[in-house]
Amino acid sequence: MHTLLLLVNEKNRPAYLSLLESARLPELEIVTSPNPQVDLVLGDPSLVRQVIHEFPVLKWVQVTWAGVEPLLDLSLRRDYTLTNARGVFGSLMSEYVFAYLLLRERKILQRLEAQKSARWDEATTGSLKGKTFGLLGVGSIGAHLASTARHFGMHVRGYTRSNENCPDVEAWFHGSDLIPFAQGLDVLVCTLPGTPDTRRIIDARLLAALPPHAVLINIGRGSAIDESALVEALNHDRLGAAVLDVFEQEPLPPGHPFWRARNLYITGHTAGPSFPSDIGALFIENYRLFLAGQDLKYRVNFELGY
Amino acid sequence: MHTLLLLVNEKNRPAYLSLLESARLPELEIVTSPNPQVDLVLGDPSLVRQVIHEFPVLKWVQVTWAGVEPLLDLSLRRDYTLTNARGVFGSLMSEYVFAYLLLRERKILQRLEAQKSARWDEATTGSLKGKTFGLLGVGSIGAHLASTARHFGMHVRGYTRSNENCPDVEAWFHGSDLIPFAQGLDVLVCTLPGTPDTRRIIDARLLAALPPHAVLINIGRGSAIDESALVEALNHDRLGAAVLDVFEQEPLPPGHPFWRARNLYITGHTAGPSFPSDIGALFIENYRLFLAGQDLKYRVNFELGY
Repeated sequence: MHTLLLLVNEKNRPAYLSLLESARLPELEIVTSPNPQVDLVLGDPSLVRQVIHEFPVLKWVQVTWAGVEPLLDLSLRRDYTLTNARGVFGSLMSEYVFAYLLLRERKILQRLEAQKSARWDEATTGSLKGKTFGLLGVGSIGAHLASTARHFGMHVRGYTRSNENCPDVEAWFHGSDLIPFAQGLDVLVCTLPGTPDTRRIIDARLLAALPPHAVLINIGRGSAIDESALVEALNHDRLGAAVLDVFEQEPLPPGHPFWRARNLYITGHTAGPSFPSDIGALFIENYRLFLAGQDLKYRVNFELGY
Repeated sequence: MHTLLLLVNEKNRPAYLSLLESARLPELEIVTSPNPQVDLVLGDPSLVRQVIHEFPVLKWVQVTWAGVEPLLDLSLRRDYTLTNARGVFGSLMSEYVFAYLLLRERKILQRLEAQKSARWDEATTGSLKGKTFGLLGVGSIGAHLASTARHFGMHVRGYTRSNENCPDVEAWFHGSDLIPFAQGLDVLVCTLPGTPDTRRIIDARLLAALPPHAVLINIGRGSAIDESALVEALNHDRLGAAVLDVFEQEPLPPGHPFWRARNLYITGHTAGPSFPSDIGALFIENYRLFLAGQDLKYRVNFELGY
């Protein structure tokens, strides 16, 4: 018999319970408060972190997010299998990224202004076709973004540590080739996790390498950007626009210069919502593998941080 | 020797001339004013219509738009080959349609309002995934839209006269099945040409068959919609939203009730811009077929009107 602790925000708890109960998973008791029998956890990383030391027989934690930073702190235990959510955020992230790219190409805000004054606006629209899309980090989310960019006729570049296993990326860059990667991009999307290696990888030098019309989008982690350098670039029109869903400090503090920066679109870490239907299905799939003694999907490497 | 009359709006004329001249097409003289030697025309349908009777040896007209209504009037000659522009507008129309669908799903206008008051907005986003996308008319533009909808995980229905040759459409409807087609759609996109058969096909009855949250998008021709019925549906919240690029009368007259309708997004017939690079390449391809005595691409059937 296994004891699963469900540790998700209150709003989502009923949906998870209903999903898991209707799956009638064998040999599984589900609890919603910590107890010493708990050997499995399904939860939000920030909540799991607070109780992770309480389980003497912990075997496996499935988290509901792609990012696992709260559980990577060196003061925390690593004597269990940690799996994250992958394969479910790709299409959601594509929706987010292309929502903002298309908003700009199709001049939607300008058209809405014209409409308010009953003005027939015949200004020609732009198009994504033929533009160059750069991915900083090409995991499962990056791969979906690459496929969407290709669908819209864009050229796709990818910058990774070493992997080159996404067929929609046409040009690969690694290691010290960050600046050549950035040169000539119309769009740069960061999907990097928050690790010591990715800290402030988007700095003044990288921003200066982008064309002044380029759009920067961050759906990875806020720590990947030197925020002061980005504010400078935006406010001096050295960058076309930025779309940020993640920040060094969240919620973004009221006095932060981002709130008043030029051509910046801010969202509150909502780009890739974690839907119980997606994550519940992933847990159920992994639980069957767990029972069968097989390798779990999307296991996190604590050293790499993803 | 052939004489080609180039008849496009002034803004695009230099781009067309430069494209055609650099292609060094054999046996071709290019002129920009009508003369009796003209046997070929490349032009905007509204401009071509004004001079179509002036050419005693007219053989072929390639128009720069998808829609050819100005040349279908029964008072006009039909003793020539008419080809329109296809295969070039699909990806542009996908950009337009999904720009507006994603604008709504991702609550972009609401997020921008929150940002203006430095408010961290954590409201959950929607998603296109799993929603149902209906196409009224499935030609080359519809086929691209269907592929984009599938890319974002949507279900796709198509309503056509008879053809079923788009692999991304999962459920086909024809003839009297217009109401069952409309029932349950989250999105209805009209790509129909302006013909007597399509006139006001989107009427009060069809609008009533759509779920009240549905979004209607018209990128075909304005005549396909009963505009009064649509204003009624919008202003009584019997429809989620409408996005209109085409209208019975264009430019949309200043006093038209559309300007003040609820949840309506208006654009000025700019969804599928006709770029000289796209259309020039199409003309060049067709001209080579013409010289070789082969069938031209995208020939219009005057009876069908497309």
